[in-house]
Amino acid sequence: MTAPTGIFVVFEGGDGVGKSTQVRLLAEHLAAGGHEVVTTFEPGATALGALLRGVLLHGDAGDVGARTEALLYAADKAEHLHELVRPALARGAVVVCDRYVDSMVAYQGAGRVLNPDEVEGVARWATEDLRPDLTVLLDLEAAEGLGTLTEPDRLESAGLDLHDRARAFFLDLAARDPDRYLVLPARRSREELAATIATRVDRLLSDPAGTLPG
Amino acid sequence: MTAPTGIFVVFEGGDGVGKSTQVRLLAEHLAAGGHEVVTTFEPGATALGALLRGVLLHGDAGDVGARTEALLYAADKAEHLHELVRPALARGAVVVCDRYVDSMVAYQGAGRVLNPDEVEGVARWATEDLRPDLTVLLDLEAAEGLGTLTEPDRLESAGLDLHDRARAFFLDLAARDPDRYLVLPARRSREELAATIATRVDRLLSDPAGTLPG
Repeated sequence: MTAPTGIFVVFEGGDGVGKSTQVRLLAEHLAAGGHEVVTTFEPGATALGALLRGVLLHGDAGDVGARTEALLYAADKAEHLHELVRPALARGAVVVCDRYVDSMVAYQGAGRVLNPDEVEGVARWATEDLRPDLTVLLDLEAAEGLGTLTEPDRLESAGLDLHDRARAFFLDLAARDPDRYLVLPARRSREELAATIATRVDRLLSDPAGTLPG
Repeated sequence: MTAPTGIFVVFEGGDGVGKSTQVRLLAEHLAAGGHEVVTTFEPGATALGALLRGVLLHGDAGDVGARTEALLYAADKAEHLHELVRPALARGAVVVCDRYVDSMVAYQGAGRVLNPDEVEGVARWATEDLRPDLTVLLDLEAAEGLGTLTEPDRLESAGLDLHDRARAFFLDLAARDPDRYLVLPARRSREELAATIATRVDRLLSDPAGTLPG
């Protein structure tokens, strides 16, 4: 007998694509099936993360440099893995996490200041290269995600550009490792998305090694 | 004409070897010679660093993991470079810093949890691989540094071991790049040490490219 090891499922995508809704629906589905489920998120899920959020979002220590910011996000990730994700997986739970390494690469790397491959290297070191068993990418074209903006000004145009670049990073990461990604159009109904995701995760739980044909 | 660039001098070594005294004596010598001198230290010299010090030394966010700790020290370094060291060097100042990358490698790497080469990689990324023009290593055998302890108990013995390992890291880093290190026995008188260091830094200031014979 080997020690039980859980399943690590991550949701990625831009703001407003419905990640937190799908995290909740998947958790309900798994709990109904008798699984221990831990839902969590990055950044900010630990005591340290909450402290760092004050630095990163509210400027508690002034405006920090690009590398400083990336390293603080990496520290948040390292602590999240250390305190929460690894222990939960070690006891056999299904961990469902809203954002992970891909978001750090997409947002820290999309600003054109830092090299995305280097950002990914730092994030992978922080997380001991723990890869999700499945990443669900809820993909939405940036123009749709910002559809409520009727008169985009220059700042919003810049924001659109940043979001387009982040989306390109997400799709590129998914394309590099297709077996571990489920890319879904975020505009589908939430019920349709939830059913597709549940089917894929159920298959993962019944066949963790991925030996059955897809 | 090229832009003025300053000189970056770092002091390394264990606790209690006299680094802060020598930083001060060197700064006095350089200021008397008409140079702009900026003395600083790691970790904790910026607003962010002061905040992180609370996390690292006082456990403001509980006991954090080894990678988390290393990444917070790296964030401190990144911000120190961004806010203070780079701007000072850009205007031509001599920056004299108490501890830098070597201390992070020596202490984060000596705990036997993290790979020292990986810790060095993170520290170099944080600092954009900015290397000191000169590192003064004040070397003291650990047994001498702890000489006031008359009856070492098991904890102190463990501490001695950690200090021995840190010292070995310092000496190894110096051996890898001898032209940029000045290794001095810390037991010498402070006046003798200050004179030797001043002579070496004066030579660096008169010949930054190191073209004169040693």
